[in-house]
Amino acid sequence: MATASLDVVGIGNAIVDVLAQADDAFLASQGLAKGTMTLIDAARAQSLYAAMGPAIEMSGGSAGNTMAGIASLGGKGAYIGRVRDDELGRVFGHDIRAIGVRFDTAPSTSGAPTARCLILVTPDAQRTMSTFLGACVELGPQDIASDLIASAQVTYLEGYLYDPPLAQEAFRKAAEIAHAAGRKVALSLSDPFCVDRHRAAFRALLAGHVDILFANEAEICSLFETKDFDAAVRAVRGQCEIAALTRSERGSVVVTADATHTVAAEPVQKLVDTTGAGDLYASGFLHGLTHGRDLPSCGRLGSLCAAEAISHFGARPETSLKTLAANAGII
Amino acid sequence: MATASLDVVGIGNAIVDVLAQADDAFLASQGLAKGTMTLIDAARAQSLYAAMGPAIEMSGGSAGNTMAGIASLGGKGAYIGRVRDDELGRVFGHDIRAIGVRFDTAPSTSGAPTARCLILVTPDAQRTMSTFLGACVELGPQDIASDLIASAQVTYLEGYLYDPPLAQEAFRKAAEIAHAAGRKVALSLSDPFCVDRHRAAFRALLAGHVDILFANEAEICSLFETKDFDAAVRAVRGQCEIAALTRSERGSVVVTADATHTVAAEPVQKLVDTTGAGDLYASGFLHGLTHGRDLPSCGRLGSLCAAEAISHFGARPETSLKTLAANAGII
Repeated sequence: MATASLDVVGIGNAIVDVLAQADDAFLASQGLAKGTMTLIDAARAQSLYAAMGPAIEMSGGSAGNTMAGIASLGGKGAYIGRVRDDELGRVFGHDIRAIGVRFDTAPSTSGAPTARCLILVTPDAQRTMSTFLGACVELGPQDIASDLIASAQVTYLEGYLYDPPLAQEAFRKAAEIAHAAGRKVALSLSDPFCVDRHRAAFRALLAGHVDILFANEAEICSLFETKDFDAAVRAVRGQCEIAALTRSERGSVVVTADATHTVAAEPVQKLVDTTGAGDLYASGFLHGLTHGRDLPSCGRLGSLCAAEAISHFGARPETSLKTLAANAGII
Repeated sequence: MATASLDVVGIGNAIVDVLAQADDAFLASQGLAKGTMTLIDAARAQSLYAAMGPAIEMSGGSAGNTMAGIASLGGKGAYIGRVRDDELGRVFGHDIRAIGVRFDTAPSTSGAPTARCLILVTPDAQRTMSTFLGACVELGPQDIASDLIASAQVTYLEGYLYDPPLAQEAFRKAAEIAHAAGRKVALSLSDPFCVDRHRAAFRALLAGHVDILFANEAEICSLFETKDFDAAVRAVRGQCEIAALTRSERGSVVVTADATHTVAAEPVQKLVDTTGAGDLYASGFLHGLTHGRDLPSCGRLGSLCAAEAISHFGARPETSLKTLAANAGII
C-alpha cells in the first residue's frame, strides 16, 4: 500500500448556509421541528427565506465543515461535492480552497442553483435547518476521482449524501475504491430523520463498508430503533472498527470491539450556535486518528474542535484549531 | 409641514460585505493601507478575493448599516440604493427588508453585478475595505422618490455616494426635496480618503445643504485640512446645525453653534471588528434626534449602538438595539 498523501477526503452535499436568528414562535409558525434538518424544494426555500430575518451567508455542508476543520488543524484534505457555476457556488469553492482543502469537482453548468441551507438559530443556541439540495443532486459516480480516494488515509462520507439519489452510487463507488486501496471508510449519520429515511441502507453499509462511524445519541438510537443509548452501544459494537458517539454536553463515547472510552466534553464559555458541532468533532477525531493518536486523544481533539464551533455563529472554525489544540497540549 | 411618517430615509451604496480574517503581512502583500476603504475594479476584486481567506457574506453598505440600526432600535426607516437582480442583490434586499426597512429601489437588470466590499479584519479588530461598486454606479436621480424623501424627518446620505458619479445628482436632488419639505439632511463623511477625493464638494455641501454632519476624527481633520482636532471643531462650528464627531474609544463630541457636548464611549467587553462603528453611531444618534432626545442622549445612544457593532464580526446589529437601549435606560 502506497503512503497516503492526504489525510482525509470528504464527500458531501456542497451547501452555502444562510443563518438567521429566530424564536420558537417563528419555528412553530413555519411548522419546523427544532434541531432537525428538513429537505425543502425551491419554492419552499423562497417562501421560508422571505419570512425569516436578516441573515448571513457562509459556506457549510456537513463534510465541507469537517474538511475545513481538518485543514484548520493543519491536516491535508480534499473535498468532493457539486455546486453550480453561480455566485454561491463560487463562494463555496473560494472558502474551501482558501482554508487549504483541495476541491476539484467541476461545477454544474446547467440545472438547479448551488444548494443552500436555511439555518434558524434560536436563543437556546439550537439550530433548525431547511435544505434545498439544488445542484447537489447532480453529484454522481463520475465525480469520484479514484486516485484522490486512493491517496487518502480516510474517505469520509456524510449520511446526508444518501438524500440525492445519484450520490448513493458515488458513495458506494468511493467506499469500494478506498477499501481496494487499503484505506479506511468513515460515515457520519448526519441527522436522526436522515437515518429514518435510509435506515436499511445505513445498516447494510455499516455491516460491510464502514470502518469508522460517527453518530450522536439520537442518530445511533434511531439506527438501531431503540430509546436506550446503552442498548445502541451494545448494538453497534463489532459492527465497525470504531464508533464515535457524541452526546452534546456529556461528551462522547468511543466504542471498539473490545473497549469503550468515555471522553468529556470541552467546557464552552458561551454556547452561541450548535451548528457544526458534530462536523467539527469528526474533524478533530479524524485528525487525531490520521496522525497516530490513541482513541481517547482522538476524542479529546474532537471535543475541543466541537467546542470552538459552538462558541460562535456558524459551523466552520473562526480561529486556528491547530493553535487551539497546541495550547491545550493535545497536538 | 405634514407629520413625518418615517424617521429616517438612508441613501447609499448597496453593498454585500465579504468578511475574512487577515494578518498585517497579508495587507502589506496586497498593498492595502489598514483601516481605509479603497475602490477597486472587477478584476482586482477577483484577484483579491482569490488571495484572501475563507469569508462570510453579509449585507453592508454604510447607510444600509445605519438603517438596519434604526430599525433595530424600533425606528421607521427606508433605504434607497441600487443592486443588480442577482444572487447577492437578492441577499441585500432580503436582509434590509427583513429587519424592517422599506426598500423599493428597482434593481438593475443589466450591467455590473451587485457591489461587494472585501473586508479584511486584522487581529487588532481594525477593518480594511476594498470596494467594487458594481451596480451602485447605476444609482441616479430617477431612484430618488420624492414622496419618500418628503415623508422622512431626516434624509441621511453617506459620503461614499460621491464616488459613483451619477449618485452625486441623486444626492443633491434628495437634499433639495428634503429641504423643500422642511426636513433635515444628514451627511456622513465615510472615510478620510473619500473626503480627500471630494473635499471641495463636501465643503460646498456643508455650507449650504447639510444640517447634521457625522465624521470621525480623521475625516473631519481631512475636511478642514488640519491635524488638530480642536481646530477642526472650531472650523465646523456654525457650518451646520449639529456636527457629531466620533473619536473611537474617546467617545464623541457633539458640536452646535453655541455648545459642545462631550460623550463617553460605551465600554466594550471584547473588541472584535470595528466594521460599522460609525454607521451604528449614526443610527443611535439619529434615532434619538427623531424621537426628541437632547443631544447628549443622542450621543449616548450612538455610543451604545457602536459598542454593539464592534463587539462582533460584521457591521449590522446581532441583538435588538431597542432592548439594549431599554436595558441601559436610554430609551
